[in-house]
Amino acid sequence: MIRSLVNRPALGNFPSLDMHDILSTGLLRAAPPGLNQVFTASTGSDANETAYKAAFMWRRANERGDADFTPEEIESAMRNQAPGAPEYSILSFNGGFHGRTFGSLATTRSKPIHKLDIPSFDWPSAPFPKLQYPLDQFSVENAAEEQRCIDEVERILDTSSKPVAAIVVEPIQSEGGDNHASASFFCKLRVLTEQKGVLLIVDEVQTGVGASGKFWAHEHWDLSSPPDMVTFSKKAQAAGFYYGKSDLRPKQAYRQFNTWMGDPARAIIFRSILEEIERLDLVKNVAQVGDRLFNSLAQLSQKYPHEIHNLRGKDRGTFIAWDSTRRDEVIVKALQKGVLIGGSGARAIRLRPMLVFQNQHGTFIR
Amino acid sequence: MIRSLVNRPALGNFPSLDMHDILSTGLLRAAPPGLNQVFTASTGSDANETAYKAAFMWRRANERGDADFTPEEIESAMRNQAPGAPEYSILSFNGGFHGRTFGSLATTRSKPIHKLDIPSFDWPSAPFPKLQYPLDQFSVENAAEEQRCIDEVERILDTSSKPVAAIVVEPIQSEGGDNHASASFFCKLRVLTEQKGVLLIVDEVQTGVGASGKFWAHEHWDLSSPPDMVTFSKKAQAAGFYYGKSDLRPKQAYRQFNTWMGDPARAIIFRSILEEIERLDLVKNVAQVGDRLFNSLAQLSQKYPHEIHNLRGKDRGTFIAWDSTRRDEVIVKALQKGVLIGGSGARAIRLRPMLVFQNQHGTFIR
Repeated sequence: MIRSLVNRPALGNFPSLDMHDILSTGLLRAAPPGLNQVFTASTGSDANETAYKAAFMWRRANERGDADFTPEEIESAMRNQAPGAPEYSILSFNGGFHGRTFGSLATTRSKPIHKLDIPSFDWPSAPFPKLQYPLDQFSVENAAEEQRCIDEVERILDTSSKPVAAIVVEPIQSEGGDNHASASFFCKLRVLTEQKGVLLIVDEVQTGVGASGKFWAHEHWDLSSPPDMVTFSKKAQAAGFYYGKSDLRPKQAYRQFNTWMGDPARAIIFRSILEEIERLDLVKNVAQVGDRLFNSLAQLSQKYPHEIHNLRGKDRGTFIAWDSTRRDEVIVKALQKGVLIGGSGARAIRLRPMLVFQNQHGTFIR
Repeated sequence: MIRSLVNRPALGNFPSLDMHDILSTGLLRAAPPGLNQVFTASTGSDANETAYKAAFMWRRANERGDADFTPEEIESAMRNQAPGAPEYSILSFNGGFHGRTFGSLATTRSKPIHKLDIPSFDWPSAPFPKLQYPLDQFSVENAAEEQRCIDEVERILDTSSKPVAAIVVEPIQSEGGDNHASASFFCKLRVLTEQKGVLLIVDEVQTGVGASGKFWAHEHWDLSSPPDMVTFSKKAQAAGFYYGKSDLRPKQAYRQFNTWMGDPARAIIFRSILEEIERLDLVKNVAQVGDRLFNSLAQLSQKYPHEIHNLRGKDRGTFIAWDSTRRDEVIVKALQKGVLIGGSGARAIRLRPMLVFQNQHGTFIR
């Protein structure tokens, strides 16, 4: 889908099928700040795997310089051995979820049921901050916890026997239980990865496209420089990764390529979603409704402290969650009242309303 | 897509959106003989990876029996280590192509450009028969070559340090250069895998849906028992794998699962493709047109032996190829005459006409 598949004038009343137009008015117009290229894929797993492949090719290209592949690389790659198939790694965080194909699954660290019985790569993982709530009562402890995790990431980058080409991280660990970290944590991660020559991949498969109260959740962080790649799927109804650096595009053709290259129809659907989000100002709507929802839940949490612990997602739109000791019971009771909410992690209840969720829909929590 | 997503009566003139109906009149009605279940996926790579995952889960379940996961398995799986992430393998053939995501890519052995710089699994590969043409002049040599490959597969199954859960094989190695083996070779492979307790996955991503002159290319073999899994994509406009054994379905929920589970719209499209294939009797058409095409090319090959070597694909519908020492030049010249043909492997020219290709379209070769 990178090249124009059907590049011709519009037919009668049909809209143009010029892929350049579809991308420039759709997927590329929605690109996160600083990123101006997109690689289309089929699923969130596929988006992450192609991002990982781009990271590995970039890393080897840096080492190789202008040299061509060596005969030894070519021969060993066909045997799945180094140096052709190098022993590089992607660093992910405990509690993270990045997909279920073999490469993405190797970086998924949320629950054993996803991983059991599946051969995997010996890739490293780092602790993700375990923050204590309410945040304003634990600012010293939480800052120390985040620094501990950053220090551990640095130690792994310096000592991993399988050199780390990229770190992949979710803005909010979603499947793992709606685990948050501060903007400061992610800014430190960006600085550290730049210092170490390691790419930063932000997995916005769950958080992207408005649910956090910004179009991309990482826009909340005010990073010193953009992430190297941002992956997306789910709400986008299309999948892939954004990037900015031209050298993430391999020099040789067909290295990042497959039959489907995503689905052009989904790129068109995404453009319509984007237009609807803008027409109804849905990102602003999510931010406003999210604020009210969070404040209402904070009041409930004070009133029923045994039911609603660790309320989180302040200033993150409707991406709100809390812990409950009788989680599954609450989810069933809510459903009986017509409210569809879900669980994540071990004991979290998470809200994931659609972008059109408005204050009048929230009367149930009064 | 395994469960009925939208299970309700038809609305007015719209067709039913009952997924059970869509599958039973579409994807499942087209199932290869002996296979009666389908797992839907997003792409050919995804189809193969989910088939591999099913094979690994099946293998461990056989070893584990009725026992639950052990604490050690659960803990080690989260670290990507054995026993939770066992050191099992999938055996593939040199020259095979099975996809480009990390797991499927580990079994792809066609060209280094797909694999270079990407970390891989230390999985074994076996030689695929290198047949000599014309077949009737080399029957002794070819039988010996196929037996050599079967013997090597047996040796690997007996000695691999990473136990082989499944063998994946294409009926005709497509991307690798249209490499054929005899029905006898595949029958021996089926017998051997059953003897060794190893699953046989037939990758029909390229060969499936009619192009070989049968709906599934492996129907040409007359196997003693059906393959354990058959994967599909491309022409199907939907992707996934068929299977017959119920124990390839994991006992626990959510082990084979993801957000998209393929695309219900594509299952509907597949049903329409199937109906059109039947309405126009296209598989029979492919067989007949393929015979005539092959015979015409065989005559040309005798007339121009320096241009058309190793003609192959007899009795395989329009899945026809030959080798050419000036392959790229021939492809360009054909295009200039309005004939779109392609290359595969190192020097093969392959034909992949659509199923509606008929004798009158072939006048160019007179």
